[in-house]
Amino acid sequence: MKYSQMSRAELTAEHERLINEYAAIKSLGMSLDISRGKPCREQLDLSDGMLTVLKDAADCVSEAGFDCRNYGILDGLPEMKRIFSDLLGIPVSKIMVGGSSSLNFMYDSLSRAMLYGVVGSDRPWCKEEKVKFICPVPGYDRHFKVTESLGIEMINVDMTPNGPDMDAVEALALDPSVKGIWCNPKYSNPDGITYSDDTVRRLAAMKTGAPDFRIMWDNAYAVHDLYDDGDKLLDIFAECDKAGDPDRVFYFASTSKITYPGAGVAMMAASEANLAQIKSVVGMQTIGYDKINQLRHVKFFGSADGMLEQMKRHADIVAPKFKAVCEILDAELGQYGIARWNEPRGGYFISFFTEKGCAKRTYALAKEAGVNMTPVGATYPYGFDADDSNIRIAPTYPSLEDIKKAMKIFTVCVKLATCEKYLF
Amino acid sequence: MKYSQMSRAELTAEHERLINEYAAIKSLGMSLDISRGKPCREQLDLSDGMLTVLKDAADCVSEAGFDCRNYGILDGLPEMKRIFSDLLGIPVSKIMVGGSSSLNFMYDSLSRAMLYGVVGSDRPWCKEEKVKFICPVPGYDRHFKVTESLGIEMINVDMTPNGPDMDAVEALALDPSVKGIWCNPKYSNPDGITYSDDTVRRLAAMKTGAPDFRIMWDNAYAVHDLYDDGDKLLDIFAECDKAGDPDRVFYFASTSKITYPGAGVAMMAASEANLAQIKSVVGMQTIGYDKINQLRHVKFFGSADGMLEQMKRHADIVAPKFKAVCEILDAELGQYGIARWNEPRGGYFISFFTEKGCAKRTYALAKEAGVNMTPVGATYPYGFDADDSNIRIAPTYPSLEDIKKAMKIFTVCVKLATCEKYLF
Repeated sequence: MKYSQMSRAELTAEHERLINEYAAIKSLGMSLDISRGKPCREQLDLSDGMLTVLKDAADCVSEAGFDCRNYGILDGLPEMKRIFSDLLGIPVSKIMVGGSSSLNFMYDSLSRAMLYGVVGSDRPWCKEEKVKFICPVPGYDRHFKVTESLGIEMINVDMTPNGPDMDAVEALALDPSVKGIWCNPKYSNPDGITYSDDTVRRLAAMKTGAPDFRIMWDNAYAVHDLYDDGDKLLDIFAECDKAGDPDRVFYFASTSKITYPGAGVAMMAASEANLAQIKSVVGMQTIGYDKINQLRHVKFFGSADGMLEQMKRHADIVAPKFKAVCEILDAELGQYGIARWNEPRGGYFISFFTEKGCAKRTYALAKEAGVNMTPVGATYPYGFDADDSNIRIAPTYPSLEDIKKAMKIFTVCVKLATCEKYLF
Repeated sequence: MKYSQMSRAELTAEHERLINEYAAIKSLGMSLDISRGKPCREQLDLSDGMLTVLKDAADCVSEAGFDCRNYGILDGLPEMKRIFSDLLGIPVSKIMVGGSSSLNFMYDSLSRAMLYGVVGSDRPWCKEEKVKFICPVPGYDRHFKVTESLGIEMINVDMTPNGPDMDAVEALALDPSVKGIWCNPKYSNPDGITYSDDTVRRLAAMKTGAPDFRIMWDNAYAVHDLYDDGDKLLDIFAECDKAGDPDRVFYFASTSKITYPGAGVAMMAASEANLAQIKSVVGMQTIGYDKINQLRHVKFFGSADGMLEQMKRHADIVAPKFKAVCEILDAELGQYGIARWNEPRGGYFISFFTEKGCAKRTYALAKEAGVNMTPVGATYPYGFDADDSNIRIAPTYPSLEDIKKAMKIFTVCVKLATCEKYLF
């Protein structure tokens, strides 16, 4: 029976039952963490062959005969670019390959915009009176932190099952002080939503008040399908070309969740004009990135197909965890009408919505019972979820058994928090 | 006989002789490169054991039990910090370990200062009307490029055998818009000069007009001695502490020329207060750097002593090249009184000074004869050497035989250029 249909007496009885259940759970002294999107040990093991794939000096020579142990090659090995090109369907000419962190590429892209401007800017963004960014919510906490850190004002736009609410985005983009939008277009963090073709087309074609508007296209989960028939995402570059604004997109991806987080390879893609401006600054910043690690990736996978094979092995490990989360949510909460959640077909998260005003209490209860979740609000700019409703669940890192335990505890906490809301 | 003592007839004869010698050299169609401070192949080979030092998942666990394949640890592995600490005599608490490029740390330090300010700043440097930096000359081209790129005005100060002309530095530092100074304090690029104790003390103790003045202490050649009794550099942190300005120094180093350029490990050191501010921004920029590569370095060397042993093997390879350069310069040019050069005891360069107005011509002649040198002016801010005199010689990369050939050609070019100056 739905909580909304229960009498006060029924709710009181339910509350009493939950208090006892919660006390019993707490007494177990659990310590479970479902807070961050980290691969688990078995996923990391998949790439261990990479550790020794380069054995000697001869192995460190690129296909063009370049000794990758030495200085040189600012924008990445051509063979590594080609793998990203094949993997993501982006022309090699738009790609640069860098360190191990795509977040670093994103931060640098915005700090560069602040200090120098981008192609089409009248002045560096730090010389503008105000710079604003559109932030689809819920979203990725680190996007928001980067933006806040640089003093860029963030404006929330709701996510829909097709991506950001494009009516709202189009209206906001007309403001010349709005310089861009964050997008995590495939299996979005945390909702697991893939932008519809129409959304991608509208993003590419919409009128913007700023001539130097940028879409920060963080395709972090581009190949991170849970099932064989993964979601399809429209080619944003092609759409921008068609719409006559080829410079609108800064595109990011990495192998952090293909090989090793922190020791993978990151890439950025942008129009040739953007890339020329970017490289003119990056060339001041460094002599070059770690080409040996790029070569390790190239030799370990051989091709984009090799990477896609690896992604199937990842899916074999993590899909059962996602399934377990959804099954437990359904079994434990489905009947009460007090929450909704997405069942993503890829990515790293399940986005869970309590009734308004219940997320923080749920988080606190879970924490007290030994289950660590992503802090409530983290999925919103300035850490503030006005509805106090969204909770991000990250099922990849713990074991399947721990996930099940954590989710059972979590559902009790959701019910308890909601009961309290109804009763007190 | 010195050119300055030759009669016009003697100079004309010398010129004719040199023209013929130069023509003969040019006809050989050489292609030699002594332009950049790159390690040679034999030096790179010294680190090849590092490629396979981590063999499996168990090898990727840090001493604290952390799985380095996964996310985490923003500021570097403690065991890697400890090696830098022992190597450079810096407390671990002042050290952070990052990617593979110390230049990137330097660029980021200044771009961060522009966007956020540093500890002690009234406002971000980009909000100041003007920001100036003191640049000892000749110096490292990439320092100057970073500074120029960020719109910071550069003021030249001459190098002396003891480091920068400290009378000039102290006078300039009183200007509140002067926010810092670039220093490459040991075996400086290109002069190979190690700052005297007095220079280090004066840098630490001098009065500065800006409360947020920073010394960019690029100790790139800290352990890059050519001989057993290396130069000794005073501890800048200790001197700043004594002088009561512990936050004055940003210190940089890397293993780029210990292991692999571009695939080494970079470090930055600064006071604990500086480091806290820096990490608050770096934490927005990335989740963490490549800890696997840090672990490779730790396991390959074991300790700072292991690195110092490696540096002796480097010296065995490069010291004969430095010796050959100096011997040829001495034999071919010593008697003519038309040039001076330093004989460094470490580092990567030999700094050569023609008579005023002869460097560009020498460079052009050498290039035409197939010897590529660092472009004249590169060792000065804005690429402008007002004396047209300094040429940087980088002897490490070519073979000993090629170095000898290149230097013979170079000395002919110097003589020819100088003869032309006297005659025409």
